[in-house]
Amino acid sequence: MKLNKLLPLAAMAVAMPTLGLAEGHAEVPAAVPTDVVWILNSVLFLIGGFLVFFMAAGFAMLEAGLVRGKNVTMQLTKNVALFGLASIFYYLIGYNLMYPLGDWAIEGVFSALFPAVAVLEAVGVGADAVDDYAYASTGSDYFFQLMFCAATASIVSGTVAERIKLWPFLIFVIILTSFIYPLTASWTWGGGFVGEAGFSDFAGSTIVHSVGGWAALTGAIILGPRIGKYKDGKTVPMPGSNLPLATLGTFILWLGWFGFNGGSQLAMGSIGDVADVSRIFSNTNTAAAGGAIAALILTTVLYKKPDLTMVLNGALAGLVSITAEPLTPSLGAATLIGAVGGVIVVFAVPMLDKLKIDDVVGAIPVHLIAGIWGTIAVVFTNGDATIGAQLYGIVVIGVATIVMSAVVWFILKAVMGIRVSEEDEITGLDMSELGMEAYPEFSKG
Amino acid sequence: MKLNKLLPLAAMAVAMPTLGLAEGHAEVPAAVPTDVVWILNSVLFLIGGFLVFFMAAGFAMLEAGLVRGKNVTMQLTKNVALFGLASIFYYLIGYNLMYPLGDWAIEGVFSALFPAVAVLEAVGVGADAVDDYAYASTGSDYFFQLMFCAATASIVSGTVAERIKLWPFLIFVIILTSFIYPLTASWTWGGGFVGEAGFSDFAGSTIVHSVGGWAALTGAIILGPRIGKYKDGKTVPMPGSNLPLATLGTFILWLGWFGFNGGSQLAMGSIGDVADVSRIFSNTNTAAAGGAIAALILTTVLYKKPDLTMVLNGALAGLVSITAEPLTPSLGAATLIGAVGGVIVVFAVPMLDKLKIDDVVGAIPVHLIAGIWGTIAVVFTNGDATIGAQLYGIVVIGVATIVMSAVVWFILKAVMGIRVSEEDEITGLDMSELGMEAYPEFSKG
Amino acid sequence: MKLNKLLPLAAMAVAMPTLGLAEGHAEVPAAVPTDVVWILNSVLFLIGGFLVFFMAAGFAMLEAGLVRGKNVTMQLTKNVALFGLASIFYYLIGYNLMYPLGDWAIEGVFSALFPAVAVLEAVGVGADAVDDYAYASTGSDYFFQLMFCAATASIVSGTVAERIKLWPFLIFVIILTSFIYPLTASWTWGGGFVGEAGFSDFAGSTIVHSVGGWAALTGAIILGPRIGKYKDGKTVPMPGSNLPLATLGTFILWLGWFGFNGGSQLAMGSIGDVADVSRIFSNTNTAAAGGAIAALILTTVLYKKPDLTMVLNGALAGLVSITAEPLTPSLGAATLIGAVGGVIVVFAVPMLDKLKIDDVVGAIPVHLIAGIWGTIAVVFTNGDATIGAQLYGIVVIGVATIVMSAVVWFILKAVMGIRVSEEDEITGLDMSELGMEAYPEFSKG
Repeated sequence: MKLNKLLPLAAMAVAMPTLGLAEGHAEVPAAVPTDVVWILNSVLFLIGGFLVFFMAAGFAMLEAGLVRGKNVTMQLTKNVALFGLASIFYYLIGYNLMYPLGDWAIEGVFSALFPAVAVLEAVGVGADAVDDYAYASTGSDYFFQLMFCAATASIVSGTVAERIKLWPFLIFVIILTSFIYPLTASWTWGGGFVGEAGFSDFAGSTIVHSVGGWAALTGAIILGPRIGKYKDGKTVPMPGSNLPLATLGTFILWLGWFGFNGGSQLAMGSIGDVADVSRIFSNTNTAAAGGAIAALILTTVLYKKPDLTMVLNGALAGLVSITAEPLTPSLGAATLIGAVGGVIVVFAVPMLDKLKIDDVVGAIPVHLIAGIWGTIAVVFTNGDATIGAQLYGIVVIGVATIVMSAVVWFILKAVMGIRVSEEDEITGLDMSELGMEAYPEFSKG
Repeated sequence: MKLNKLLPLAAMAVAMPTLGLAEGHAEVPAAVPTDVVWILNSVLFLIGGFLVFFMAAGFAMLEAGLVRGKNVTMQLTKNVALFGLASIFYYLIGYNLMYPLGDWAIEGVFSALFPAVAVLEAVGVGADAVDDYAYASTGSDYFFQLMFCAATASIVSGTVAERIKLWPFLIFVIILTSFIYPLTASWTWGGGFVGEAGFSDFAGSTIVHSVGGWAALTGAIILGPRIGKYKDGKTVPMPGSNLPLATLGTFILWLGWFGFNGGSQLAMGSIGDVADVSRIFSNTNTAAAGGAIAALILTTVLYKKPDLTMVLNGALAGLVSITAEPLTPSLGAATLIGAVGGVIVVFAVPMLDKLKIDDVVGAIPVHLIAGIWGTIAVVFTNGDATIGAQLYGIVVIGVATIVMSAVVWFILKAVMGIRVSEEDEITGLDMSELGMEAYPEFSKG
Repeated sequence: MKLNKLLPLAAMAVAMPTLGLAEGHAEVPAAVPTDVVWILNSVLFLIGGFLVFFMAAGFAMLEAGLVRGKNVTMQLTKNVALFGLASIFYYLIGYNLMYPLGDWAIEGVFSALFPAVAVLEAVGVGADAVDDYAYASTGSDYFFQLMFCAATASIVSGTVAERIKLWPFLIFVIILTSFIYPLTASWTWGGGFVGEAGFSDFAGSTIVHSVGGWAALTGAIILGPRIGKYKDGKTVPMPGSNLPLATLGTFILWLGWFGFNGGSQLAMGSIGDVADVSRIFSNTNTAAAGGAIAALILTTVLYKKPDLTMVLNGALAGLVSITAEPLTPSLGAATLIGAVGGVIVVFAVPMLDKLKIDDVVGAIPVHLIAGIWGTIAVVFTNGDATIGAQLYGIVVIGVATIVMSAVVWFILKAVMGIRVSEEDEITGLDMSELGMEAYPEFSKG
């Protein structure tokens, strides 16, 4: 069959006979059988889930590229370990805390081993009948939701890099993924009071990104800046050791975001749903483009030279900005929403430095501040969203995350200390804490 | 359920009951409901689209790996920026220029902001009824088509690397993605005169790859070679700074090509279509293998030592070669078509050097020359393709691209200059134009 | 449409009307039409296939990161070349040897060129009727199966790195992918005697990973260790040159494993099948997490310092361990099965060193020993699996692979030599065999 991309004509040539058939013959039905709806919804979660999974690699590469060479192995170790711990603790505690509805937590073959947490044991597994309350397989939902939880932890690791001890950081991750994120997320996505108040956050500008950002900000303040970062009132640049890695990480995150936002449609079993997912993909992409190009132009105007790290963070800020509502904006509006995210990054990075808040990779501007912006921007594109409800959600979730994070950070600081010794920090965490260099053969310049 | 991979028997065990049921019971119909066709077609565009999106990362890594260390940050900046600009300008201008049919450009909520370009505002979004002219969601089509446009720009950036100024390059990208590519592509895929003349180019050996290649060639000639590249009649090797990155980029491009060629089937809602997509995946893979192995053997024979960069470009040339017709060849023919692409690379790279055309990453052999070969090879596998129509398309699209590209390059050269100063080029673009090293800690050997 | 992630309620709000409609109106059927089953099964193979394809990049990055800088270009060359050769020889010989059933090997347009191997020429291609024996397109099955074969070869390359000659290695790959893997795999998946004896290996802990591992072990023993690796009874550490690459490779492999295990469900056209695929995704992920965290904790306990390379190999060992049965375990059991894999790695790596078996990247612990563990673990989770049948499969496939591999390695050694000269090994394979450095600008520390 010869095909070209002349779509409308191709549609007439290719699809019309089928549609014609549908009209003329009873044999070709139009509607989607309910089992197919269930399958396609599950497939959306699975594809969305593996794309968001890959964001773990994106965060790891971004952060490994933006820290100094002497801390790269540690940053990689933290990123792999935090994902592993998130996987285990969101399973053990987080998922059932976030969606505490009995229908999804059914016992199964091996539930005797872990009776309280056997969430995937029954629905749909080898079953011939659809559970009445389900519209997708439990396993696909769990897989998808887990990746959001893990992303929250990944956000924190970049900000507190190069000075935090490994184990206190990992304990924080356990608390974040077991309790802080599942609890605050349940207030909207689990049927809680924030969602009931009309708060609208489609894929998590606030619920995922700002929560990670608030936890990171709290940690950065309690930890303090890296040695030598702020000297005589000036900010000392500490350039990232490997910009291709940081760029790769950004592209991987951009890719993963199609799953992050697109999968959050939560359904793909009707033409309306798949059209919505398509719009979301397009808007997500263009918001990233808007953020990148805004940062490119703005850094050129302000500093005469474009700044690649700002461009990368601009793209990410664009993505965070559109996450609260990737469906309703037009492509033009989505581009502008993303562009504002890029502008935010360019101004917020030096602002944080003025406040002596040392955010190694720029995660606070990208995930927290652009997350707030994106959540507010919903008001411009959704008729039913109110600024009151949006601010209510931002504040309630923000305050709760700050308080809980601060308590955990302070306890960790008191009990075991959260910061490496001055000597170890100067040596670099790779040799002092791990005894393993990331690039043992490349002599330092 | 215990399963093994004994497929035909498994088919009998697993699928036969269903098929038997289909014959015996009216409850299990055989045909695909039209709404499901629409959904599956859209899903093909979305999956194909995110795979082709990821090619942007592939190009970035390939090029960052093949330029010298002093130009890596600039190459990364160009790759992120060109993708951002392509996203914005294909939306603003290119898409509607390429497919200028009213049915796909319908106003929506925010169309007041950008009335002329509000392409995604209506069809299928939350709709219950399928537009009569549509067989997939507009958003999914736009998402998929955009990625092809961006790929064209990515091809150019590798060839003109290490000496072109950032902003003139980006302005060229804007013109290319707004006008040159959409216009020349519309002549075949938009219902234009080249397609009407019988030109056959399934996924764009000529329409995407050669257009990028011609634009790159024109730029390389007008720019001139890098300082020191050709000295006393000899070609001075300027080895790439990071071959793992180049290899990663190649694998990412190879992955993305399944979306590039497979998605160009444009339909997945029938067993015939999905079987075709499957064949395309298999043929695309084996053509890459053919190209890589041909380059491996040929460089071993010619130079005694296999050349990794030739093997990588051989794989890519194999992929470009099969792009004009990835469906009809057998696996054997596809392997051979790809292998010829690999051979082309091995001979064309030194040939271009003899002509003192400095193509930093080898994009002209890979995308232009292998693209021409692939377009001609259609004649061997498609009964209805004629050598006349293929050459007609190659020449018409080629001449148009050369002329338009040359005009733009010459205007840019006259107005703002396109080449960095000799001093800046020797210093490297990273420090001179951006003030930011890609690997600040690795001392130069 | 405003959506949130309150799944059970959303299910009631969103899906219930549809389900209600299904009950009330004949227009919305429940069952999946058989053509849709066929399409969805094929789509599973295609998505699974491209994910497993990407594992080739994962292996390449993992290995390039774990070898020393002087052997990186060679390791990359081997990885690209082995994938190319696997693609060609699994097509030419392997696939039809593994599934020697006539219905899947039908002639087509270009079958005259390669009459014996024209496997993809007919079924489903542009067809309107489903082949009676098929439940998915031949092309999609071939694409998926090929990737498993290539993975087997990738496993070998890591173990024998840094000292094996390029061409003997590639000839071994040709034999492995043409004969050894297809033959031993056919004994279970092709309807052979091992499968008939009750051996259960869902996605190939033994059939893929241990076969690669046995071939690697045989090669490592016959090759001998790298010069200087074992000195005065001590193991000399030879640290990998680029740990971010190794980490990236691990994440890519982890991603690909969703396709590896999920695709091995071989069907996605019913709610039971997609629920199973969902469970498999979740179990695969948590087993990797279990392996990584087990290795993290154990290396901290044993050596006081966590070891990133052990954590990475722990994750991979977790993935291999769950591969023999990713469906039936609960999440808790899957985590534990993976964790045992992580423990195996931590103990097996030094054990191999004690035996002076030099496995450069740790592929033998990860793929062979964890593969054996995973195959045995099936007994704990599957009622119908017996320890006898599992051991029978492990031993029969293991002995056959060892014998065939050893014969090939010995013939290669006798005929052309398999090891580079001492001088070349010390210089590094990149300069001695290829004349091309991976990082020409980074001076060695």
